[in-house]
Amino acid sequence: MHAIQQHLCFLFQKQRTLQSILSLLEWDQETYMPANAIASRSRQIECITSLLHKEKTSAEFTQTLASAIDLSSGKILVPASLAFQTALQEWRKELLQEQKLPLAFVEEFAATTAQALHIFPEAKKQGNFPLIAPHLEKIVDLSREKARLWGYQDHPYDALLDIYEPGLTVSYLSPLFTDLKNQLIALIPQTHKSASLPCVFTHPFDPIVQKKLGEELLQALGFDPSHSRLDLSTHPFCTGIDIQDTRMTTKIDPTSPLSSLFSVLHEAGHGLYNKNLPMEYQDTPLCQPASFGIDESQSRFWETCIGKSLPFWRYFYPKLQKSFPEALASYSLEHFYSMIQTVSPSLIRIESDEVTYSLHIILRFEIEKSLIEGSIQVKDIPRVWKEKMAESLLPTPTHDGEGCLQDIHWAMGGIGYFPSYALGNILAAELFAILQQTMPHWDQEIQKGNFSPILSFLEQKIHRHGRFYTPKNLILQATGKPLSIDSYIQHLKNRYTM
Amino acid sequence: MHAIQQHLCFLFQKQRTLQSILSLLEWDQETYMPANAIASRSRQIECITSLLHKEKTSAEFTQTLASAIDLSSGKILVPASLAFQTALQEWRKELLQEQKLPLAFVEEFAATTAQALHIFPEAKKQGNFPLIAPHLEKIVDLSREKARLWGYQDHPYDALLDIYEPGLTVSYLSPLFTDLKNQLIALIPQTHKSASLPCVFTHPFDPIVQKKLGEELLQALGFDPSHSRLDLSTHPFCTGIDIQDTRMTTKIDPTSPLSSLFSVLHEAGHGLYNKNLPMEYQDTPLCQPASFGIDESQSRFWETCIGKSLPFWRYFYPKLQKSFPEALASYSLEHFYSMIQTVSPSLIRIESDEVTYSLHIILRFEIEKSLIEGSIQVKDIPRVWKEKMAESLLPTPTHDGEGCLQDIHWAMGGIGYFPSYALGNILAAELFAILQQTMPHWDQEIQKGNFSPILSFLEQKIHRHGRFYTPKNLILQATGKPLSIDSYIQHLKNRYTM
Repeated sequence: MHAIQQHLCFLFQKQRTLQSILSLLEWDQETYMPANAIASRSRQIECITSLLHKEKTSAEFTQTLASAIDLSSGKILVPASLAFQTALQEWRKELLQEQKLPLAFVEEFAATTAQALHIFPEAKKQGNFPLIAPHLEKIVDLSREKARLWGYQDHPYDALLDIYEPGLTVSYLSPLFTDLKNQLIALIPQTHKSASLPCVFTHPFDPIVQKKLGEELLQALGFDPSHSRLDLSTHPFCTGIDIQDTRMTTKIDPTSPLSSLFSVLHEAGHGLYNKNLPMEYQDTPLCQPASFGIDESQSRFWETCIGKSLPFWRYFYPKLQKSFPEALASYSLEHFYSMIQTVSPSLIRIESDEVTYSLHIILRFEIEKSLIEGSIQVKDIPRVWKEKMAESLLPTPTHDGEGCLQDIHWAMGGIGYFPSYALGNILAAELFAILQQTMPHWDQEIQKGNFSPILSFLEQKIHRHGRFYTPKNLILQATGKPLSIDSYIQHLKNRYTM
Repeated sequence: MHAIQQHLCFLFQKQRTLQSILSLLEWDQETYMPANAIASRSRQIECITSLLHKEKTSAEFTQTLASAIDLSSGKILVPASLAFQTALQEWRKELLQEQKLPLAFVEEFAATTAQALHIFPEAKKQGNFPLIAPHLEKIVDLSREKARLWGYQDHPYDALLDIYEPGLTVSYLSPLFTDLKNQLIALIPQTHKSASLPCVFTHPFDPIVQKKLGEELLQALGFDPSHSRLDLSTHPFCTGIDIQDTRMTTKIDPTSPLSSLFSVLHEAGHGLYNKNLPMEYQDTPLCQPASFGIDESQSRFWETCIGKSLPFWRYFYPKLQKSFPEALASYSLEHFYSMIQTVSPSLIRIESDEVTYSLHIILRFEIEKSLIEGSIQVKDIPRVWKEKMAESLLPTPTHDGEGCLQDIHWAMGGIGYFPSYALGNILAAELFAILQQTMPHWDQEIQKGNFSPILSFLEQKIHRHGRFYTPKNLILQATGKPLSIDSYIQHLKNRYTM
């Protein structure tokens, strides 16, 4: 290996280690940290974040990188494999982004979002938009400033989007999302009416048994407990602390086993991607998901494409019945599956069915794009929210707590994040279509509980490439064509209208 | 506050924050980390350890400190409160110690103990002393070198002892321990014979109920779950990640509730000290336990003085019976308490009764002192161990796994640590004697489950002083006289021979 490459990998390993410590601090905060230890946790997170920033912009790292790639033009200056060239470009991109934000700006952004996150739970609980509005105004202003500092060609939102979806732009996304929105709205009236059988359970589901079942499901999906964990948290998530240490969480509802099982499948999708990342690139930026949307395609693939399929429940329902013999005694597989298949437009994004979910995302995309371009103001959000819910045939919130304050993303400064959720849905459906074409007996394998063909399929198509390709090229390579909503719409039609 | 003081506290806060991150990494490693994530965990710990060393010896910290205290003479150079003067002396002492060890030495020591710790479990399991001996030889050599680098007046062991018990020396400890050993050996034949009633339980004790009971006990002792936790680990421990975040662990034996309850009481003793440390000194070295021995006096006070007292079980046994009605149905309080009171010399230190425990410690102290002074060699340990066990009226191990390989301390490089355990026992008994004198109704309060008078007593005597006093002065102030074994021997006589 080239000496410069070795040196860069060595320096990057320290950045990765600090990042993994940050992940553990955040994981602990959401799982086991005593609630009132938050002040000390904030100091710890601030300390590592600042050390990480210093490492990423250190003179040693900058100079070493500059000796391998021209930082202004991006021209490679040393003999380099294709992978190392890609790594150099990634390093350069991240360094320039870090350098473009003055420390004072970074600190102001962090302090502003910390305040907003502190206020957010109360504002949500009270449905009190004016309480959080001044903070959101500041966050929107700072996000516009961030876009200006980073620079963009056409639309300031492009600069923010790029954090989550490298290379994606408003000019690409807007027509795609408009088309998707129209087709989804047209689809809703055609979906099955909910089954006439009752859609709730009458017996409780022991949380300890639910957790154990989640762990068994993870093992069936190939997770080794000596490299992974399942814990409980208020909002389910997956953290890859390291390739060797994948931590997933779920939230358990004692009145139904569904919410936790779908969370486990969702987080398992992220977790599988994490544990299958290319080890050979582990000290480079290539050993990470290609984008948030690609990562989300993996979680949604397992949660919806597989998790809401009849073959999966043919395999898993007997296990579920065995775990809860009394509670499920009177539910046949058909009755149970009809409950899963119910399409019922919801106020709440995270409770949405597969058909309407992306409408919630597109609405958020439209609002945050308008905020960043200045065509609406923060004070307009509650009104625009209601208008857009109605336009999407979704219910009208009675207060902002179940409307525009339901998600924490804006309060945490994550403007530009939402589109990844819809992109994940679209790509998941494309991968599912290819799976069905190339592996016609996928359903029989799943019914037998044999997931390995699907696991290899995803590993080959997505996981093993890490960030070697741009998201667009990865999609091209995996599906043979640019991203398109056709498979997604067809999948929803197949599953929910026929 | 003086500007230099402010600056030092500011720099020290970063050291404390890094230390707290290290504590969390270690806590997670022992509680929830997937077993095979150890390589990534080692990188994380190494990274923070090295950052911490850099902060502790940074030019900025050194120069700021040197402007407030003459680093060679210890003369204070700025107007300073008594507390700040003490903090300056602590900072100076730690800085000089950090500076005296060359980085190459620190790294060699860390690499050597890492290897030894890797080998240790197998050597212990096999009772295979030759497997670990070469590593222990290296550790003894490096420890002697460490003592030389740090410097000492009379005995090289003094330099090592000073890490755990600042100011303590062999010339002080040797006669104290010899006296204690002789008196304990004389005491053993006088203790009660074990009760004729059966000393084992016949029903299982549900681990989940045991854990819940441990948590209830912690709450009764004043722990607020929003600032503390109880988890499970192979070896119980307490980590004060921060004053606001006290984490204790226990180990649950499904055949008896005693082991976990005594662990909970023990770790609660450490935890109470941690959560009551003086907040007003939080950005100085004064906000930490005065020494390992003082810290151990708190854990042993709760585990033995209180936890093995009849009044405690008058309070707690009904709760225990309520939790395990079936398993304890045939055990009266008297029968149960006679099981706790059994004196039965054990091979294993951590399973020892209150009477013989310190003999295990003195034996280890004698061996490690001889190793450091060179009067015995590592290869002599197994033989000397058996001789000293016999001399102390303790059973003779049939293999080294239950003998000199039972404890991990030497493999982790902790020569000098063991004496703190015996010092903790002695001081705990002294505090207990004062409690009984100054609060004659302590037993009635405990029987009612009212721990607050004892909690205030310990807070006033020990906790709130942090490291403001040297251990010797803290003991003087708390007990009115230098450390003495009289109360300890009298306590053992009262409880186990009368």
